[in-house]
Amino acid sequence: MDTYGSTNDIIKNSIKDLNLPEKIKIFDTTLRDGEQTPGVSLTPDEKVEIAINLNNLGVDIIEAGFPISSPGEQEAIKKITSLNLNAEICGLARAVKKDIDIAVDCGVDSIHTFIATSPLHRKYKLKMDKEQIINKAVESIEYIKERGLKVEFSAEDATRTELDYLIEVYKNAVDAGADRINVPDTVGVMIPRAMTYLISEIKKEINVPIAVHCHNDFGLSVANSVGAVEGGAEQIHCTINGLGERAGNASLEEAVMSLKMIYGIESNIKTEKLTEISNLVSNLTGIKNQPNKAIVGENSFAHESGIHAHGVLAHALTYEPIDPEIVGQKRKIILGKHTGTHAILSKLKELNYIVGENITEEQFNEISKRIKDAGDKGKMITDLDVVAIVDDITDRTAESERAVNLEQIAVMTGNKIIPTASVSLIMNNERYTTSKVGVGPVDAALKAICSITGEKIKIKEYHINAITGGTDALAEVIVILEGQGREITAKAANEDIVRASVEAIINGINKIMK
Amino acid sequence: MDTYGSTNDIIKNSIKDLNLPEKIKIFDTTLRDGEQTPGVSLTPDEKVEIAINLNNLGVDIIEAGFPISSPGEQEAIKKITSLNLNAEICGLARAVKKDIDIAVDCGVDSIHTFIATSPLHRKYKLKMDKEQIINKAVESIEYIKERGLKVEFSAEDATRTELDYLIEVYKNAVDAGADRINVPDTVGVMIPRAMTYLISEIKKEINVPIAVHCHNDFGLSVANSVGAVEGGAEQIHCTINGLGERAGNASLEEAVMSLKMIYGIESNIKTEKLTEISNLVSNLTGIKNQPNKAIVGENSFAHESGIHAHGVLAHALTYEPIDPEIVGQKRKIILGKHTGTHAILSKLKELNYIVGENITEEQFNEISKRIKDAGDKGKMITDLDVVAIVDDITDRTAESERAVNLEQIAVMTGNKIIPTASVSLIMNNERYTTSKVGVGPVDAALKAICSITGEKIKIKEYHINAITGGTDALAEVIVILEGQGREITAKAANEDIVRASVEAIINGINKIMK
Repeated sequence: MDTYGSTNDIIKNSIKDLNLPEKIKIFDTTLRDGEQTPGVSLTPDEKVEIAINLNNLGVDIIEAGFPISSPGEQEAIKKITSLNLNAEICGLARAVKKDIDIAVDCGVDSIHTFIATSPLHRKYKLKMDKEQIINKAVESIEYIKERGLKVEFSAEDATRTELDYLIEVYKNAVDAGADRINVPDTVGVMIPRAMTYLISEIKKEINVPIAVHCHNDFGLSVANSVGAVEGGAEQIHCTINGLGERAGNASLEEAVMSLKMIYGIESNIKTEKLTEISNLVSNLTGIKNQPNKAIVGENSFAHESGIHAHGVLAHALTYEPIDPEIVGQKRKIILGKHTGTHAILSKLKELNYIVGENITEEQFNEISKRIKDAGDKGKMITDLDVVAIVDDITDRTAESERAVNLEQIAVMTGNKIIPTASVSLIMNNERYTTSKVGVGPVDAALKAICSITGEKIKIKEYHINAITGGTDALAEVIVILEGQGREITAKAANEDIVRASVEAIINGINKIMK
Repeated sequence: MDTYGSTNDIIKNSIKDLNLPEKIKIFDTTLRDGEQTPGVSLTPDEKVEIAINLNNLGVDIIEAGFPISSPGEQEAIKKITSLNLNAEICGLARAVKKDIDIAVDCGVDSIHTFIATSPLHRKYKLKMDKEQIINKAVESIEYIKERGLKVEFSAEDATRTELDYLIEVYKNAVDAGADRINVPDTVGVMIPRAMTYLISEIKKEINVPIAVHCHNDFGLSVANSVGAVEGGAEQIHCTINGLGERAGNASLEEAVMSLKMIYGIESNIKTEKLTEISNLVSNLTGIKNQPNKAIVGENSFAHESGIHAHGVLAHALTYEPIDPEIVGQKRKIILGKHTGTHAILSKLKELNYIVGENITEEQFNEISKRIKDAGDKGKMITDLDVVAIVDDITDRTAESERAVNLEQIAVMTGNKIIPTASVSLIMNNERYTTSKVGVGPVDAALKAICSITGEKIKIKEYHINAITGGTDALAEVIVILEGQGREITAKAANEDIVRASVEAIINGINKIMK
């Protein structure tokens, strides 16, 4: 809490009468709720990779999936249980024998079984009455205990269930042997105050640990999870990046950091790994966080130059709640329309361009002007843009110093033509000409260029910035090349995609050979 | 509240002792905090467009910008004030005469003036003591009142300020003539309970309306805004999509919908316009929401086929908190790895493919198989993918029925070559061959094709799906063509970018001519 500076009496006063736990458990459901994100589908190997990382992060329980849903799901869960991770591995099962049997076969440590209890679900989905639902829950819990596993029981749509009936369901579940109960806010309709009230009412009647599972339909899932802890919950369900059905589930990184930094409630999470696992999950699921995502977003510790950047340079905590390294992030100063000389110098230094060393005073002035002009036109200036501007200015002044210059290129392709590229390069004042074939014209051109330069160059990444417009719009190609043991980024833009690609590659090769 | 089904006694019980307002005011700061999002920079015309849409949305107060920051900013604000919108137009000013003078010159209705009060800001940023800060605040408020404008006063970093001093600052501000006071949680360190406590403590001493301004560093900004309303705040500051410095500000759409649907507290916001303005702001700022963004996210009312899709088909509210139309959204059923026949039939119908009419039973079986196979491989299946699969299967079975078939294509380009394409097409069993030049090979090919078909075809959009991988990765080209008064979408994939483009165009022309 000291990280906030000197004052936090307001928060202390507001929570002084609560009976808060010192530590909570994290039940991660990225591999179950997270995988139910519309459009996301992970392969068994990807699920295993995420499970290993969740375990290293320090998650207490990993819900590895919903075994009944498919053979691929069972394969993934079996692989995960065979790893003998520290984390408890849990499988989801409806309150149905065949679901439970399949989960047991996967070798899980515990089963999370559920049945819906709200009037809406009783009437339209289950077509069952209150008594039938309790019986089904009890039978399933008893069956899981017979099979020798731990049970976590959820009353689905708990928060829209009549409170007295809900408590009756949970009491029956505990009597039947449930080791923990979970309270799901299935469609995300709660508010923190109501969650605190609900959990404390349940806690009066129940003597096993209570978990909470919040959805984010109104953007309140993290606050509701925290509200549940205020009411006595000891375990929270969450997902990396808040993935899940619809607006997703409570985000692990936000819930863990709120509890740790604001309330002083610890967990087993190694917080410095949060950004890394967020990026991993984002890459594997294809679901990108918005830049303004809390804790792990691209911008969450970024400051646009101006009052904030100035404040942060004087003392970081003036405009940052915590040190970014606590969550594995870095502070970023972004250049924008109000950028001053000081901020540009600091950014260039960060990128290893130092006035008087590798750039001249005159070049610096030109770079500053170009950055400010771009900002005024509403352009966002990324680090890649800064590098491109610097390179353009420094290269232009020294074209004759470039190791390789493109003299001539000709490519042809078609459906009955072998894609072919012919290039003439000038190297050391000599002209070299050759021709190569490839799977397409760009591939052919790369092969031709490398056969002349003799460089063993690998294209690690090749991006064409999505072009929207007519066929005569500008195509921007960015390549990441690997050669001579290092990686460099280069780009070029042209109305002709083929020429843009070739120019980017030539720019990159020059950087490598410099 | 009826939209939640039959039970909300838990929430009612939890808030029954609070003194809640019937309605709150919305102070939108998308054009100020939102524009401070790192990397965002709006042109004056873009700011005007957003202001008009905020006014139509029903926002009470629009903070149009920070006039002192640049001449472009002043130009934008002057344009906005000259529109005579219903909303109050407000300008931000530090507690400094020159800031206030420039704001007044822009023709604003009110000025939002601020000075920091926390120990950290006093010491490191302002280098002023408590008394000096109060004097500065009072002077500025009095000066704004002399100039005849309304004043909203903020104690920056209020939530990290000593409570007794903070109240003293606000009392002095009100005595000096402040019409409203605002409580900013500048670095987003509050929790809802503490916000309720803080606002109720301030309200005991202050008799003007209280606003609250929450940042999202721990993901609690919306909950904190709502918590402030529980404590007596009558106005909340927010931004569209939660844009702002770092992790952003409280999201307007989430705050408004939480208050309306859960608490029954109204505002002047026309909620059915929320998705439209979210998209506009996203397009103009370039900051995309994550799919699992609450209320306005692409997935917030999307259901992957399975238990949820089944439930939603029985009764939408089983897995939706509210009807999506309330916020201008649509329900979406997404096809994924657990897709059943029923869900595929329903999706095809939505896209106007009906078995027995325009697709055969046999084609349907093949389509289902392709969709499931793609899902198993971890592929996300969009509507565009479904259309492509259907077209591929129906086209393939009727290739002879295609109006135009590509017989042969050859293109050449280079830095000293005029990009040229030669094509042979088969139309009505006749072979036609021609050649055209263009700005690049794709442009040339399009011109050649159109000169043969005689179709007046315009490429409205041309996307190359960003390719990551080597130069031999598959390029996917999607074109939207306009011809014969309608728009169609077509796509093709090939390792050769040029061939992928030409094939997509040919596919599209066939659809238009069918």
